[in-house]
Amino acid sequence: MKLYDYFRSSAAYRVRIALNLKGLQAERAFIHLRKNAQREAEYLAVNPQGLVPALVVDDGTVLTQSLAIIEYLEETHPAPSLLPAAPAARARVRSLALDIACDIHPIHNLRVLRYLLHTVGTTEAQKDAWYNYWIDVGLEALETRLARDAATGRFCHGDTPTLADICLVPQLANARRVKLDLTPYPTLTRIESACVALPAFADAQPARQPDAES
Amino acid sequence: MKLYDYFRSSAAYRVRIALNLKGLQAERAFIHLRKNAQREAEYLAVNPQGLVPALVVDDGTVLTQSLAIIEYLEETHPAPSLLPAAPAARARVRSLALDIACDIHPIHNLRVLRYLLHTVGTTEAQKDAWYNYWIDVGLEALETRLARDAATGRFCHGDTPTLADICLVPQLANARRVKLDLTPYPTLTRIESACVALPAFADAQPARQPDAES
Repeated sequence: MKLYDYFRSSAAYRVRIALNLKGLQAERAFIHLRKNAQREAEYLAVNPQGLVPALVVDDGTVLTQSLAIIEYLEETHPAPSLLPAAPAARARVRSLALDIACDIHPIHNLRVLRYLLHTVGTTEAQKDAWYNYWIDVGLEALETRLARDAATGRFCHGDTPTLADICLVPQLANARRVKLDLTPYPTLTRIESACVALPAFADAQPARQPDAES
Repeated sequence: MKLYDYFRSSAAYRVRIALNLKGLQAERAFIHLRKNAQREAEYLAVNPQGLVPALVVDDGTVLTQSLAIIEYLEETHPAPSLLPAAPAARARVRSLALDIACDIHPIHNLRVLRYLLHTVGTTEAQKDAWYNYWIDVGLEALETRLARDAATGRFCHGDTPTLADICLVPQLANARRVKLDLTPYPTLTRIESACVALPAFADAQPARQPDAES
């Protein structure tokens, strides 16, 4: 397998955690998003959508979309499982992951911020307010949901890490990078601490990647 | 089962199609998003996140996030299947669905448009340009992807409808509602025609719902 990766992409970060949790090795190629390497012919030949991450599996098939890649890893390498067994519990974990992957992350990713600045013509301060607003709204809903639900354990669902934790940790890393105050989210940060105590999460952190920049 | 629904929500529309394809009946409750009924105590008691759709299953568990709900329906009512059998094919279908659910839809939904108008302070024309831009970028990538791939058939994946079609049809309905020119997307509109020829898709259309308004 070969993972097309970028240290600061939170979608790629999710896949790095999943590979580590499964104990899987993947060759790595680094696509520098801030230098627009995802729009160069070499990468477009692999993934015409120009998005990171992409995972090339052993028969050459190119998989995209972090959650679809992780479901693939789950189906092809079931142990350790990243989803619980019961359908309603699986739905809970997937919905927590989608709360982040659909309702928080896409609204503040790099291309949206660039459009705000360069096409809408916002100020840097308006762009930062946008970023913080959408993360805050999303994390607040997630904190409420996790804090009130007995199914929440040491991790987002019970006491083993799942797809939900895999999405939570990179989202909180983004929030920390823009110095968002996380004190209103004690459940989220407690779960984050439990996650990053595991080497599978810690080794996937952006700062520990070969292409990391300060 | 009881579906909390709103005729114009494209996420709810996805769940309506999935229920119809599976031949499942659900009691319906209508939450008027434009009147902010999703923020009223009665609905917040069901779903504290105040999002539509929510599906209450027979033991009273409340499921949220359209894609998580549809995966639940797939696991609990496997026939007819909305995902192919092979893991790589399942990953392709899920990634097409996520191309829409993560990379197109969240950027132009109602709450984002409201924030643009009322907090960023854009004009109506800038808000409309935003809407059209993100749908166009997303549909262009999807058209390229589907047009070049031999796995595309009568539907997004082969000759039976899948989760990918369930996401495509509501997204194109949104595009039509804002009168976006769809002629650059012949593969998408061809697949849409194949879908809406099926009663499961046609009966789920916004205009055919009991709460529909013009």
